[in-house]
Amino acid sequence: MESNVNANTYVVGVDFGTLSGRAVVVRVHDGAELGSAVHEYTHRVIETELPGSGVRLGPDWALQSPQDWIDVLRTAVPEAVATAGVAPEQVIGIGTDFTACTVLPTTADGTPLCFETPAEPHAWPKLWKHHAAQPHADRINDLAARRGEGWLPRYGGKISSEWEFAKGLQVLEEAPEVYARSERWIEAADWIIWQLTGVESRNICTAGYKGVFQDGHYPSEEFLAALNPGFAGFAAKLATGEVGDGAGDGATLAPLGGLAGRLTARAAGWTGLPEGVAVAVGNVDAHVTAAAADAVRPGQMVAIMGTSTCHIMPSDQLAEVPGMCGVVQDGIVPGLWGYEAGQSAVGDIFAWFVDSFGADGHEQLTSLAEKQAVGQHGLVALDWFGGNRSVLVDHNLSGVIVGQTLATKPEDVYRALIESTAYGARMIVETFEKSGVPVEEFVVAGGLLKNPFLMQVYADVLRRPLSAIGSDQGPALGSAIHAAVAAGAYPGIEEAAAAMGKRTEAAYVPDEARADAYDRLYAEYRKLHDFFGDGQMLHTLRAIRNEAHP
Amino acid sequence: MESNVNANTYVVGVDFGTLSGRAVVVRVHDGAELGSAVHEYTHRVIETELPGSGVRLGPDWALQSPQDWIDVLRTAVPEAVATAGVAPEQVIGIGTDFTACTVLPTTADGTPLCFETPAEPHAWPKLWKHHAAQPHADRINDLAARRGEGWLPRYGGKISSEWEFAKGLQVLEEAPEVYARSERWIEAADWIIWQLTGVESRNICTAGYKGVFQDGHYPSEEFLAALNPGFAGFAAKLATGEVGDGAGDGATLAPLGGLAGRLTARAAGWTGLPEGVAVAVGNVDAHVTAAAADAVRPGQMVAIMGTSTCHIMPSDQLAEVPGMCGVVQDGIVPGLWGYEAGQSAVGDIFAWFVDSFGADGHEQLTSLAEKQAVGQHGLVALDWFGGNRSVLVDHNLSGVIVGQTLATKPEDVYRALIESTAYGARMIVETFEKSGVPVEEFVVAGGLLKNPFLMQVYADVLRRPLSAIGSDQGPALGSAIHAAVAAGAYPGIEEAAAAMGKRTEAAYVPDEARADAYDRLYAEYRKLHDFFGDGQMLHTLRAIRNEAHP
Repeated sequence: MESNVNANTYVVGVDFGTLSGRAVVVRVHDGAELGSAVHEYTHRVIETELPGSGVRLGPDWALQSPQDWIDVLRTAVPEAVATAGVAPEQVIGIGTDFTACTVLPTTADGTPLCFETPAEPHAWPKLWKHHAAQPHADRINDLAARRGEGWLPRYGGKISSEWEFAKGLQVLEEAPEVYARSERWIEAADWIIWQLTGVESRNICTAGYKGVFQDGHYPSEEFLAALNPGFAGFAAKLATGEVGDGAGDGATLAPLGGLAGRLTARAAGWTGLPEGVAVAVGNVDAHVTAAAADAVRPGQMVAIMGTSTCHIMPSDQLAEVPGMCGVVQDGIVPGLWGYEAGQSAVGDIFAWFVDSFGADGHEQLTSLAEKQAVGQHGLVALDWFGGNRSVLVDHNLSGVIVGQTLATKPEDVYRALIESTAYGARMIVETFEKSGVPVEEFVVAGGLLKNPFLMQVYADVLRRPLSAIGSDQGPALGSAIHAAVAAGAYPGIEEAAAAMGKRTEAAYVPDEARADAYDRLYAEYRKLHDFFGDGQMLHTLRAIRNEAHP
Repeated sequence: MESNVNANTYVVGVDFGTLSGRAVVVRVHDGAELGSAVHEYTHRVIETELPGSGVRLGPDWALQSPQDWIDVLRTAVPEAVATAGVAPEQVIGIGTDFTACTVLPTTADGTPLCFETPAEPHAWPKLWKHHAAQPHADRINDLAARRGEGWLPRYGGKISSEWEFAKGLQVLEEAPEVYARSERWIEAADWIIWQLTGVESRNICTAGYKGVFQDGHYPSEEFLAALNPGFAGFAAKLATGEVGDGAGDGATLAPLGGLAGRLTARAAGWTGLPEGVAVAVGNVDAHVTAAAADAVRPGQMVAIMGTSTCHIMPSDQLAEVPGMCGVVQDGIVPGLWGYEAGQSAVGDIFAWFVDSFGADGHEQLTSLAEKQAVGQHGLVALDWFGGNRSVLVDHNLSGVIVGQTLATKPEDVYRALIESTAYGARMIVETFEKSGVPVEEFVVAGGLLKNPFLMQVYADVLRRPLSAIGSDQGPALGSAIHAAVAAGAYPGIEEAAAAMGKRTEAAYVPDEARADAYDRLYAEYRKLHDFFGDGQMLHTLRAIRNEAHP
């Protein structure tokens, strides 16, 4: 293996996003990113009508086309290799990451049902942000809570309408004929690997975080039958390997960083890569970013900060942390518990404010806001403009701004909104630590890294140094690192991340005086959290709003 | 007297405002407004430096020039008479109203000290919104509370830095030499009458609401001496007539609607009116508006709605209403208790929002907001952006907006802000009624009348019909009505107001369904009122803000 690391060998990482796919070519021995290319999906997000047939979709629907994913392999990968100036023969592996839960029904050989019946909405892949299965998720949560299902606390007490079981139940009940034809119900993260290798596999990450796979099995057949008798055998559509009671006991899951298989001739034709190179087990964009940031050791919390923030952290401690999105054995790296938490809206809040209330743009508001002393604006806000995932798991909460006067200016509110998201992050970190899961390092990745003022606010509010990822294509780099492991260039993800990942430690350091000042404001934030967190007032306002809406 | 009412006789009302003075000529028998004219003050509000000398003023200072007031008599009055097409000989009286408390030091013959020492800031009239005497007001309030002064509850537990004693104490302590030369310390409302009649008088209204005159006397000499030994004799600078213990006992006050005197030859020369016509006792802009709206009977609450709202109501009940600005015997009309309450910021809030956060102006926002169903925006706000006068008497409170999401639009917030001020008005009305002072009718005057949507919100939130004044120059019309009484055309203000005042009853009527919906939102407003009204959080934010300010 040593030879692989030292030679001029390369891996390709491919990140399948919401609107495009990105390929990057990375040098195995040091992680240098030598070339990349992006393919914008032709069908983008399918939200109103189906391509070709024009069949209309209901509210909250969001679909994707598998053809767009294949096109990423056909265009972005060879283009990235060409841009990198690397000979395809120097590439030893390919890894991928996907949005999750993006999930689709296929035949037993992996053919997407939408290729067969393109005028049937339920035959198409449901994108992560397809939210039309909320009633189904509500029923799953209610029943699981009533029955005291042991897996429920592993997800902070609520599973999401975005996940495999909610979307699957929707298909069963709205299109039973499609459900019957769905021999497999598979994450796009795994489907793309099937296309590359010709072999079906199921990765531990999505099975755990989106497939409710815990302690060796999926939810029981009994539970599923109680939801709908026709749903009893659903887990068999997910499971691979020897299956026990029909609910997935004994299902075989593929470990992260593992070798899913070898590139088929057909996939070699698409990508221009040599047939037979290593293909890494499928994975999720946020989770591979931990490797890209070389932050896969216990207590390294990676915050991927963009429109929302996703927190990913390995730990050797298992605990039920209030409001977490999930804890999964081996869910980030083998051998550790993988935690995920989240803030529903972060960059989205700033964009909303600028778009609706700011004559000035982000740069101008930041430049005015950063001149202020802490607390000079007299404001404190609750960052629940998109609800609250962690730590309250309540998407019917909403935002609050306190302390405005006739002298309050847009930059004051803008700064208070930035701070509110930092308080929300501190609440998450403190909740982990209070639950017995130590957070040793806070590592930032994602688009908001480009705002140094915002980063400094987080360092001051969190009272700890922030580390920063050293790449602006974290997921694709992370996938490349997984490819290097799958190819055998490194013994494991931790070693590969150490060599190829990029993290600047203490990129932002808290200022003692500002941190003290923020402590006082955070104390007020906590009081607001307590007062509004029970949802009494905010749920009433939401209910009145929903009744009043024409 | 009957002949006066039936003949073609006229009165002149003059309203001295913050930036200009307005004269209106009104027909005595029916209140028809025949002509008016405005004179903008040459010196406007003097806030940064003194005219002529250029001497700089401190923060929160606000002065006016007496010359500007005289110029209103010299220009606006004759112009209004000319515009009205009325012969000066047909004018039987003149009445005036003023901002309050606008107060000045003079010599014994009424000469403003600023005419003698124009380079001395404290020699100038202090405009109502001069707020540099806040420390002095704080000391007065603290001492009065400690000593249990009986007059303090008559002002809702706190007097304002705008009032006579606070501003007088500031002069004593910052310019003792000016204080020593101030033989008289007089409201501009009374000073202008002195100029018209040649005789000093003190009206009941400002003495009661701004001069802390209660139950026949000013605060005691002992109390004043405890504030500062040099202040012991202050009340003698205010009182007229036989004075008892030096603190104004036995002072003679002039009743509202009374005859203050007759126009002097000099004042006849300024105004072009016949020498000897009746001059009404001085009064305050808000208080004369009650007469203009024909709303001077018990339980008729007049809300003068502009940048802020002032509530004026006569009653036959005396009670200590939480947060009222004052209750004064004969303070609006003789024979009744006159109540005053207030909302610190109303139109100011909407202007602040449009100026700072609204790409669109008031009209566009109103047009979008009025299309919504009640509660459709999902918001509730606290209208404390300028602090809260009634019912909490706390200018260190600040505004709160609750319930925002990423879908919240500017018109949503705009509507919620309008509603918040209506909730604040309802809180005041309910507090009066709970205190045993019935509110029989809610009568609106002032600039916000021009927004019918806002009026409808108030009717719906208050669950009662709104009456509307029928004049857009209410104070000047009210002054003219007082002039008619002083001239003997009517036996009293009530009769004159009935003949000359203008009020449309039930101009806006509540809609039952909307009122029900607002009840639910008002319940949430009350919860916010309780939670934030103790000031714990908002005072902390204010303190942090003040410490942080550079």
